[in-house]
Amino acid sequence: MSHDPNCLFCKIAAGEIPSTKVHEDEEFLAFRDIRPAAETHVLVIPRKHIATLTDCTESDAPMLGRMLVLTARLADQLGVAYTGGETGFRTVINTGPGGGQEVYHLHAHILAGPRPWQRMG
Amino acid sequence: MSHDPNCLFCKIAAGEIPSTKVHEDEEFLAFRDIRPAAETHVLVIPRKHIATLTDCTESDAPMLGRMLVLTARLADQLGVAYTGGETGFRTVINTGPGGGQEVYHLHAHILAGPRPWQRMG
Repeated sequence: MSHDPNCLFCKIAAGEIPSTKVHEDEEFLAFRDIRPAAETHVLVIPRKHIATLTDCTESDAPMLGRMLVLTARLADQLGVAYTGGETGFRTVINTGPGGGQEVYHLHAHILAGPRPWQRMG
Repeated sequence: MSHDPNCLFCKIAAGEIPSTKVHEDEEFLAFRDIRPAAETHVLVIPRKHIATLTDCTESDAPMLGRMLVLTARLADQLGVAYTGGETGFRTVINTGPGGGQEVYHLHAHILAGPRPWQRMG
């Protein structure tokens, strides 16, 4: 599996840098954003190093889809799922500086709680 | 294929309501948001009616992944792709009122251009 020894999120996935994990499995890791932009702000990353969504090809589609399904499952686990009332959450993938991407290891943000949200890099 | 006759986006996909299309294929349709929250604001929808990301299961993962790959491909086509400079785009899926979802047919927003962005329902 691709691993970039200089990548912050690869180091988090490898346990070399600590994180507040909310989920881990063979394919993904999810942890709290250290600079939360919302009351609930969790990042979901694939263990495989892919820099951006633009670097993904059709062969990555099943993994990307499982990552999205996981954001919804984690929203439920985090108590912010949409259950028919006024609740809910936002799933965001930033690509490039113009999109607000700060770490060049693909990640999906899960955001929820009272808006407006502050920042979302 | 699932179709909800009362759904705005199903009507757009069926051509019953006009839209400014930027892409269509057998599985997806992409069109300009009629109330853009950014200089570039395009919505990508699956033709199949699924209300929210929470309603997706593992069996929908390949479709969801292809939708994400398509947002990156369309960003390129729209001239807002991340090409190594300061450009880029944001891919967003809102789930439920708390996430800002306004139409209950799954859709991914593609947002790009000078920030701050106004609103993103």
